[in-house]
Amino acid sequence: MSRRSRRGRHHGVADTSHQRKVCYRNLKNPLLRQPAFSEDRLEAIHDTALRVIEELGIKVLNANARQYFKQAGASVDEESLIVKIDRSLVSSALESAPSEFVLHGRTAAHDVKLGGDNIGFVSVGGAPHISDLDHGKRPATLEDTRNIIKLSEHFDVIHLQSPNVESQDIPVQFRHYQVTESQLSLSQKPCFIYSRGSAQVEDAFAMMRIALGLDQQEFAARPCCYTVINTNSPRQLDVPMCQGIIDFALAGQVAVITPFTLAGAMAPVTMPGALVLQHAEALAGIVLSQIVRAGAPVIYGSFTSNVDMKSGSPAFGTPEFVQAAFGAGQLARHIRLPWRGSAATASNVPDEQAVYEFLMSAWGSVLGGVNMMVHAAGWLEGGLTGSLEKFILDIEMLQTFAEIFDPLNSDDAELAFEAIASVEPGSHFFGCEHTMERYQTAFYEPLVSDWSNFGQWTENGSQTATQRANGIWKKILREFEAPAMDVARREELTTFIERRSAEGGAPID
Amino acid sequence: MSRRSRRGRHHGVADTSHQRKVCYRNLKNPLLRQPAFSEDRLEAIHDTALRVIEELGIKVLNANARQYFKQAGASVDEESLIVKIDRSLVSSALESAPSEFVLHGRTAAHDVKLGGDNIGFVSVGGAPHISDLDHGKRPATLEDTRNIIKLSEHFDVIHLQSPNVESQDIPVQFRHYQVTESQLSLSQKPCFIYSRGSAQVEDAFAMMRIALGLDQQEFAARPCCYTVINTNSPRQLDVPMCQGIIDFALAGQVAVITPFTLAGAMAPVTMPGALVLQHAEALAGIVLSQIVRAGAPVIYGSFTSNVDMKSGSPAFGTPEFVQAAFGAGQLARHIRLPWRGSAATASNVPDEQAVYEFLMSAWGSVLGGVNMMVHAAGWLEGGLTGSLEKFILDIEMLQTFAEIFDPLNSDDAELAFEAIASVEPGSHFFGCEHTMERYQTAFYEPLVSDWSNFGQWTENGSQTATQRANGIWKKILREFEAPAMDVARREELTTFIERRSAEGGAPID
Repeated sequence: MSRRSRRGRHHGVADTSHQRKVCYRNLKNPLLRQPAFSEDRLEAIHDTALRVIEELGIKVLNANARQYFKQAGASVDEESLIVKIDRSLVSSALESAPSEFVLHGRTAAHDVKLGGDNIGFVSVGGAPHISDLDHGKRPATLEDTRNIIKLSEHFDVIHLQSPNVESQDIPVQFRHYQVTESQLSLSQKPCFIYSRGSAQVEDAFAMMRIALGLDQQEFAARPCCYTVINTNSPRQLDVPMCQGIIDFALAGQVAVITPFTLAGAMAPVTMPGALVLQHAEALAGIVLSQIVRAGAPVIYGSFTSNVDMKSGSPAFGTPEFVQAAFGAGQLARHIRLPWRGSAATASNVPDEQAVYEFLMSAWGSVLGGVNMMVHAAGWLEGGLTGSLEKFILDIEMLQTFAEIFDPLNSDDAELAFEAIASVEPGSHFFGCEHTMERYQTAFYEPLVSDWSNFGQWTENGSQTATQRANGIWKKILREFEAPAMDVARREELTTFIERRSAEGGAPID
Repeated sequence: MSRRSRRGRHHGVADTSHQRKVCYRNLKNPLLRQPAFSEDRLEAIHDTALRVIEELGIKVLNANARQYFKQAGASVDEESLIVKIDRSLVSSALESAPSEFVLHGRTAAHDVKLGGDNIGFVSVGGAPHISDLDHGKRPATLEDTRNIIKLSEHFDVIHLQSPNVESQDIPVQFRHYQVTESQLSLSQKPCFIYSRGSAQVEDAFAMMRIALGLDQQEFAARPCCYTVINTNSPRQLDVPMCQGIIDFALAGQVAVITPFTLAGAMAPVTMPGALVLQHAEALAGIVLSQIVRAGAPVIYGSFTSNVDMKSGSPAFGTPEFVQAAFGAGQLARHIRLPWRGSAATASNVPDEQAVYEFLMSAWGSVLGGVNMMVHAAGWLEGGLTGSLEKFILDIEMLQTFAEIFDPLNSDDAELAFEAIASVEPGSHFFGCEHTMERYQTAFYEPLVSDWSNFGQWTENGSQTATQRANGIWKKILREFEAPAMDVARREELTTFIERRSAEGGAPID
């Protein structure tokens, strides 16, 4: 068997050519999960988080959400807006929230399993700027958003759509139409929708139903989009974030509850303390989702890192980040929910720092057992910029992870005793039968890496990896072809956008 | 307790200042070991390797070594030079070879434990060229060798001296005098000696004894230097390599037996097949060392990676490299010997590729349970060049690993319940007591990473990490002070070198 056959399970048809075909969909992470804490200290962190929401409470700015909490039996103080959540409410929520579920794409091949050993990658999220080597850093536009969607669609190692870069050229009350339309027309992967108030969310849900041909009931039974809910750490859930949890739970769609717990700033300066706060805030959000609709799909998110204590700047890919990721993964498994982590960097350019910070945080997340790794392609400058070159560099690393996840075939034929016997001492294996049968498909073929010798590399222009990446994203965008879309649905989508735009769009909350 | 106290165990004295003091000596790796194979397939690989040396044999070019093998009962064919080694000889060797031992530095603080959970880092090894941003790539000189020694001495996360860059300006019959003298006068860490024939090795041993004030017997009982033995894969041990094993075993010094098994070239195209060959060749070398002197300290080395099947160029940091590292670590544990792995890259410059290939291979080695990670600072271009900027970048990553190895303190005070209670929802932790007590020592302070915002970074000159590294190595070299050395020993060393140089030096074998 050739190494290609290690991946054979991913594409159903027997392949008769000698091209190495790969498919990085439906990845499972077989690596051991690295704990940060002993079982009893993990329990202590969980328990302390329960004390935080039970004894100190969470400030809930959304009246609708406070009402839900109150009806469920939480203690709500309408003066301070503090909601205190009993641990029995947490237990019920953790019983009803599903441990594993599917986020559906436009075809079954684009479905993404979340939870368990499944791992999915998500590209840059939420950056107001875009940058590339040709034009540097600048405010992002709809065209940039669409370019990120195209790159994300091109690589099957990217599994979900992302918050992307901000289409700053489109007024915010109309932006969700263009962005959602772009996701639906350029990609077949599960969609991302911002929680910027019910009006925008309902618009986006309506567009999803049109594009996928689902009625309300079918849509509610089929998670096919997700949102990210960031808490206002410490201990605060704001109006649109609460509303997002409510709207997504009611619609049976996925909320990723991600506290913004930077140790030393919005969270305690110790990583275990920051994880206590993260866990408390995430649990509060999870409880709300399950009160609204028991069984609503929800993901335990973490974004815990440290800051530079001299300047207050956030830092990523630090040892503290990695250890927090190990701990966050443990906490997610402790409550049996899918875990969202990230692969992040504070670097201002796609340079060596961007790579080592990204890769340290990515390994932390992978060893922590991450199910949804966000910011995993093209995220730069602590999330302020999306970088097209870094997108390509990150894809190389994600594909390397995907290959590492694929267990080595160690059948007897692979141990190559006969091949070793057939090759003279001090000679080589280039021409032997064992090699000839396998060489075309034996190894991962890199996207960016240049393994030519110094002379050849110099002749080719002495390009760094980031410079080579520039040519790669351009070629992909040049050759991109949008997936086919049903004409009637497409027209209905256009009509919807025209009508809603004429009505003035939807305000953000 | 502050995070600094997590590292407190590394420096005996109580520290009363508020500076974060770190010590990266005596690192232990607490991470879970990642296997590549099930126990039964691991056994199959071990068994197939035994069949290789038992049924096919190893070509041994050194008559002295063949004599040793013959006396021990191996089957030796003086026509083909093939030595067939019975598995009972392997068993005896694995019983006598120590699982853990100490490589001694000039002071007890510089001792390095090898085996078990201990992990040591070694900088660039064996590069004929040097490069930096100012002068590009060029043949290395003694001054470059000395610069690498100084940088390696400066950072306590580098634990052993290395094969370094080649002092090409010194004729090879004299080179070992200058290089060994430089190691002994500029560094207190355990030394590296090339196995380039007995004459050179004996010279270097003599210099070690002078510098350390040891007689022959004391020297033999105190491992304080090591060599690397590369096989001529497949299945061949050449004259100087055999002699190195013999000389180091007789002297009680350390041999690192490292087959050069690039899958698809000098080894089978499958990673399990390459590991079979690696294991067979390493076992043959280990057997020789133990025949020569039962109990001689020996390290199981691996350098298994794949090549680009289009060009034959070696590749590093690939998924195949990482999986081979997992497997090599398993094989080393299977035979209960310390394991040497590496952190390597094929990139021609210290760019983004250099970083991700380095860091992928480093994580592979770390998760494989590496005890001695070589090429771990400044190694570039598949080992053809030592890079001063990459040295600094790599140190940042090694220090990050060292911090990750240091378990998080999760005592109740670190869980920060009281701090969380003391901070208003939506506020911050910057000024709270819990933070004030810890902030100066809470987090790793990076060497190269720049966390300033885009504006500040632009004002500071828009430097990439590699550009910043340039200033860092220069400052270290400018400020370097050699450790003190006993004057009498220093004079004796000089006299020895003068006498041996006048005698014409020592030819390489």
